[in-house]
Amino acid sequence: MTVKTVGIISPGDMGAAIGHVLTHARVAVVTSLTGRSDLTRRRAERTGIRDVGSVDAVVAASDLVLSVVVPAEAAQVAGQVAESVLRTGARPVFVDCNAIAPQTVRTLGERINAAGATFVDVGMMGGPPRPGGGSPRIYCSGPDTSLFESLRQYGLDVRRVGPEIGQASGLKMLHSATTKGTRALWIELLVAARAMGLSAALAEEFAAGGIQVKQELIDNIPHEPRRAHRMIGELEETALTFQGLGLTPKMLEGAADMHRFICTTPLAEQTSQEPDPPLEAVLDTLAAHARSTRARD
Amino acid sequence: MTVKTVGIISPGDMGAAIGHVLTHARVAVVTSLTGRSDLTRRRAERTGIRDVGSVDAVVAASDLVLSVVVPAEAAQVAGQVAESVLRTGARPVFVDCNAIAPQTVRTLGERINAAGATFVDVGMMGGPPRPGGGSPRIYCSGPDTSLFESLRQYGLDVRRVGPEIGQASGLKMLHSATTKGTRALWIELLVAARAMGLSAALAEEFAAGGIQVKQELIDNIPHEPRRAHRMIGELEETALTFQGLGLTPKMLEGAADMHRFICTTPLAEQTSQEPDPPLEAVLDTLAAHARSTRARD
Repeated sequence: MTVKTVGIISPGDMGAAIGHVLTHARVAVVTSLTGRSDLTRRRAERTGIRDVGSVDAVVAASDLVLSVVVPAEAAQVAGQVAESVLRTGARPVFVDCNAIAPQTVRTLGERINAAGATFVDVGMMGGPPRPGGGSPRIYCSGPDTSLFESLRQYGLDVRRVGPEIGQASGLKMLHSATTKGTRALWIELLVAARAMGLSAALAEEFAAGGIQVKQELIDNIPHEPRRAHRMIGELEETALTFQGLGLTPKMLEGAADMHRFICTTPLAEQTSQEPDPPLEAVLDTLAAHARSTRARD
Repeated sequence: MTVKTVGIISPGDMGAAIGHVLTHARVAVVTSLTGRSDLTRRRAERTGIRDVGSVDAVVAASDLVLSVVVPAEAAQVAGQVAESVLRTGARPVFVDCNAIAPQTVRTLGERINAAGATFVDVGMMGGPPRPGGGSPRIYCSGPDTSLFESLRQYGLDVRRVGPEIGQASGLKMLHSATTKGTRALWIELLVAARAMGLSAALAEEFAAGGIQVKQELIDNIPHEPRRAHRMIGELEETALTFQGLGLTPKMLEGAADMHRFICTTPLAEQTSQEPDPPLEAVLDTLAAHARSTRARD
């Protein structure tokens, strides 16, 4: 099976990185940059992704169309592609790579299928891939994932979960709850400890009680603020996933709240070019912000 | 400093165990069993705790009165003791050992102080103590904790956190968020994995992503159901603690929801005499219950 052209909507951090792996392997990658920022434009240029001007042109040119956006935009992209499929008569395989709830992804799948195209559900775990090495784990599911799976030959770590739309997204949601949910809880409790002047006492109690805090968890906290904005939607989708299963959405809604809270501090304005602030500074800033929030109540 | 008589309201699992450590060391321990169950009565007899018939009699006889109840009963006990102090003119030191929010404990402290007695804030981490060895970590705080601290000589692991009412409770709340909050999140996500048929895929993803799940966390899950009822109130108090600090209460409210959900299954009816069911059986029962909950919606 050969993929000649891949469409990517849109070439942000992750989308452009996937595109770069493919262009590096001499696969044509196209997108529509109409209305996109200069940053996105430059990123596309740098990674060899070609602007074909419109979603219709992307759909008409591509064997596979990858949707790689924030959760809030996933439905809009799937809707646009479904309309383009109907309008152009082209039948690319549509691949939703976004962090959205299985029930949401099933709705998008029905829409794409109704337009006559194949739908693949994808959940990605880990950071952006790089040409020549390093790939997130890219889980896929659906009745026909073979064309998408052929991207494995270009160094992407594609893994099939099963035949059902929603399985790959379900796995992504479980991963979010595990990593981002746990981290949100720990950020909150460490900020609470600081706000109550109990950080040292808590550390002593952990030592006395044999509670080992995973260093990786702690080390990741200073990275969180700059990613907080992106996490809100993903954690809300995780909450919806649990609710859809008959379980409480509140723990994950609370994790989204925590990131929303972080987004109202200057910490969230750091760019990825700046070094992470020290953990103590992050917790101090958040504790001070909590105090001021409470004072306003 | 010598403690001759300690009052304990009420001698449940934890209260009676503390009483037993004291009676074993020949300290007199009194309580009121009026209206209590046969189980509590037998437990008191077995541990040498003497029934003096009323809270007034407990207050009149004791140097220290320990309140060891479920969070929902803590305010009532403190109120009764404050009234007894006013009625009897006795001035025992009142020790609130319950898992309640710092702001709640401060209100109880004001009430006891207004009646003319000394108040000590206590938070206990770990299981019940045993005569001759093994004690939970018993943190205390408040302006005058010296009489309570003298219980250290009987083998109780009493530790002073600081001079403020609310510090010991605050530490207890942080401990609850750490242990019970984290466990609730993991129970939920493991049940969700099972409900979606993704348990094996999640285990593989953990292995692929280098996510090490703490074995202690997993091993503790089968214990949770029988303790679920007791945890609801404690997690709600933890949620209130965070809210009082200007942080979201939702993660911990969700953890309380999770335990409320567990309480509606037959798992919660196990007694501590029965062995824990296997982890797989616990997750299966909870996943099946989630499905039936969802079906009713």
